[in-house]
Amino acid sequence: MTSMTSELQTKGQAARQAARRLPHLSTEVKNRALHSIAEALLSRQEEILAANAEDHEAAKASGLSASVLDRLLLNPDRLAAVADGVRTVAALPDPVGEVIDMRTLPNGLVVGRRRVPLGIIAAIYESRPNVTVDIASLCLKSGNACILRGGKEVIRSNTVLARVLGEAAAGAGVPEGAIQLIENTDRALVGEMLQMRDVVDLLIPRGGAELIRYVAENATMPVVTGGVGVCHTYVDASADIGMAVEVAHNAKTRRPSICNALDTLLVHEAVAAPLLPALGRRWAEAGVEMRCDERSLRILNAAEIPKLALKPAAQDDFGREFLALIAAVRVVDSLDEALAHIERHGSGHSEAILTADYAAAMRFLDEVDAAAVYVNASTQFTDGAQFGLGAEVGISTQKMHARGPMGPRELTSYKWIILGSGQTRPL
Amino acid sequence: MTSMTSELQTKGQAARQAARRLPHLSTEVKNRALHSIAEALLSRQEEILAANAEDHEAAKASGLSASVLDRLLLNPDRLAAVADGVRTVAALPDPVGEVIDMRTLPNGLVVGRRRVPLGIIAAIYESRPNVTVDIASLCLKSGNACILRGGKEVIRSNTVLARVLGEAAAGAGVPEGAIQLIENTDRALVGEMLQMRDVVDLLIPRGGAELIRYVAENATMPVVTGGVGVCHTYVDASADIGMAVEVAHNAKTRRPSICNALDTLLVHEAVAAPLLPALGRRWAEAGVEMRCDERSLRILNAAEIPKLALKPAAQDDFGREFLALIAAVRVVDSLDEALAHIERHGSGHSEAILTADYAAAMRFLDEVDAAAVYVNASTQFTDGAQFGLGAEVGISTQKMHARGPMGPRELTSYKWIILGSGQTRPL
Repeated sequence: MTSMTSELQTKGQAARQAARRLPHLSTEVKNRALHSIAEALLSRQEEILAANAEDHEAAKASGLSASVLDRLLLNPDRLAAVADGVRTVAALPDPVGEVIDMRTLPNGLVVGRRRVPLGIIAAIYESRPNVTVDIASLCLKSGNACILRGGKEVIRSNTVLARVLGEAAAGAGVPEGAIQLIENTDRALVGEMLQMRDVVDLLIPRGGAELIRYVAENATMPVVTGGVGVCHTYVDASADIGMAVEVAHNAKTRRPSICNALDTLLVHEAVAAPLLPALGRRWAEAGVEMRCDERSLRILNAAEIPKLALKPAAQDDFGREFLALIAAVRVVDSLDEALAHIERHGSGHSEAILTADYAAAMRFLDEVDAAAVYVNASTQFTDGAQFGLGAEVGISTQKMHARGPMGPRELTSYKWIILGSGQTRPL
Repeated sequence: MTSMTSELQTKGQAARQAARRLPHLSTEVKNRALHSIAEALLSRQEEILAANAEDHEAAKASGLSASVLDRLLLNPDRLAAVADGVRTVAALPDPVGEVIDMRTLPNGLVVGRRRVPLGIIAAIYESRPNVTVDIASLCLKSGNACILRGGKEVIRSNTVLARVLGEAAAGAGVPEGAIQLIENTDRALVGEMLQMRDVVDLLIPRGGAELIRYVAENATMPVVTGGVGVCHTYVDASADIGMAVEVAHNAKTRRPSICNALDTLLVHEAVAAPLLPALGRRWAEAGVEMRCDERSLRILNAAEIPKLALKPAAQDDFGREFLALIAAVRVVDSLDEALAHIERHGSGHSEAILTADYAAAMRFLDEVDAAAVYVNASTQFTDGAQFGLGAEVGISTQKMHARGPMGPRELTSYKWIILGSGQTRPL
């Protein structure tokens, strides 16, 4: 810890100071601050977009991929959407102060749990600058201070965004220091952040599988991991074929690069013959590459799906998160085989069964161990806004503390409050 | 991991097998198993007490302290109380399967969270054999498998208890392997358990501060820590003196050796003169040693409290968990000073204010950051049974996942379930 950079130390202390006062801010002040932030994002748009343009140019010059360039880009439309997101957070109920399970015990003690902020949330993430605003707003709403560490390639955008957010929040009465951005983009700094057990109450890594594994294995403080989704859609023997084609198509192609997108299609052999040709045609048209086991390949080949769209699956195509227009395809003999496949290859994110069979639906809901388990719907619904949380800091695939999309309530803890009138406990 | 003893490996795998089936056990089977366990604890009493007598003799011969000898001792009364505890757990509601926040979204999707077991709970604890039964019953009730590692000095008792529990549970239809006891008492094994990230979903250390710190710093899986209570009772300027004497006396002396016992008494200077002599006399009679700051020592001396009961406080007496008939005592000038003292020295366990002043009570509830915050009651109420959870596996002083007493519900996670009829997500 002696080597910790002074930036981490200074900003950690500033966050700690703010975190003392944040739990006591009224909902009114927090919401006013969120609205000020939304306004500032628009009124200071030029400044933000100029910094972002510099990031974009530098990233282009250094040869980053088109998908990274797209992720880091801000423009007036995207910025307006980000500001709208902040207003959505303002409109959410404030979880802080909510009292749950309150009751009067026989001895007259009144006991309940009151929600309180966690304290300081740190986030380590990559190239999307909107994440800076999303996490800062959700932390503010839930009374937490935050320490943000975004990707090197958007440091100029993030620096301006953090300044805009901090100034707007402070102007509305939020304690200075509530929103901290780490500006040092040295990779070694991540290792140091993972040692800040005394400062950080919860660490959220958002990014690729490698980052998340590194953080989970090395962090000394509680971590909520997630975001890696190896998602299956299983088409059961009894599924309605038309519906199955629509749902599987949506799960794969609506946005192929997000964690809740379909990675592997499992098809019961009883419906493989009608389903695969119909879905294969849709997928081929949409540019989806299918990596097929032997049986599905035979059926798809026979259906005259363009050869270019078909490949035999490699061993590791099952259990792989593609984040692209690629799907692994396998024919199974039974629901049991589908369940075993998902248990072996799933990452505990989002899994779906498409079926008309009540018992099959119930078994799938019971037995699949994942953050989100679907019957007859696209896995692309796994999302805080879709699930009614308003927004999310991420999607947890762990079981402790919170699972699935994490909204403001998932950034809180509780304390037991006990209101007495002189009660003593008998021996 | 290559060095992991085969006992850990074998029992870990057996627990994993059981953990696949435990989430699907009906409440009926689980409760029947708990009742069988309660009966077996009584019907096989001789066997259990014989093993315990051997532990007791060996512990005595090796010169363990009277308090350890008392903690490890079982007798017919204590065993009957343990069996009663198991019946209490049977009578609790089953948290598994409970669905929370279920709602129908505008698009017709029905979304909710269904409680599921965490999976495998490991516990590392010390010399009380009843902990073996308590944790095993709470894990069974909540559908979790458990891997138990008790103290060396009660290994004979624990071995017999685990066998009795396992046989009774299996006889009632619980999958074999649900309750695992690690019989190797080599200290190095604890280090190996902390590496079992792939097997253990949650690790609970129960014991002294040293064990808990070691586990928190070295475990690779999620841990819930707690049990270390540096507890304050602050007597405010407006407190009713008679009530304050009773409550503080109870908080210290009812059971001085448990984590929710009073460690430090803080007294507002306005009531120090009437309060300290009255409480000092009670405490001196009960054998409480008072370690006093200058002001409180002056008042207690003037009140002719027996000199033997009074000592000047050393620097580190504040912030210390005594677990004995010792209390640190300090006079403060204000509620602010009391709050600052608690923030600096408290361990986030149980803190109380005794007051007649509404605003002081509200400020204390708001500002003290602890698992249990009391107004006008003894901190000795911090306990799962007292708070209506029925029983507890421990008292968490962390904020993630669960805080305060952890009952069966706190041993669960949830999964989102989504019931659709073919919904796809628009772009």
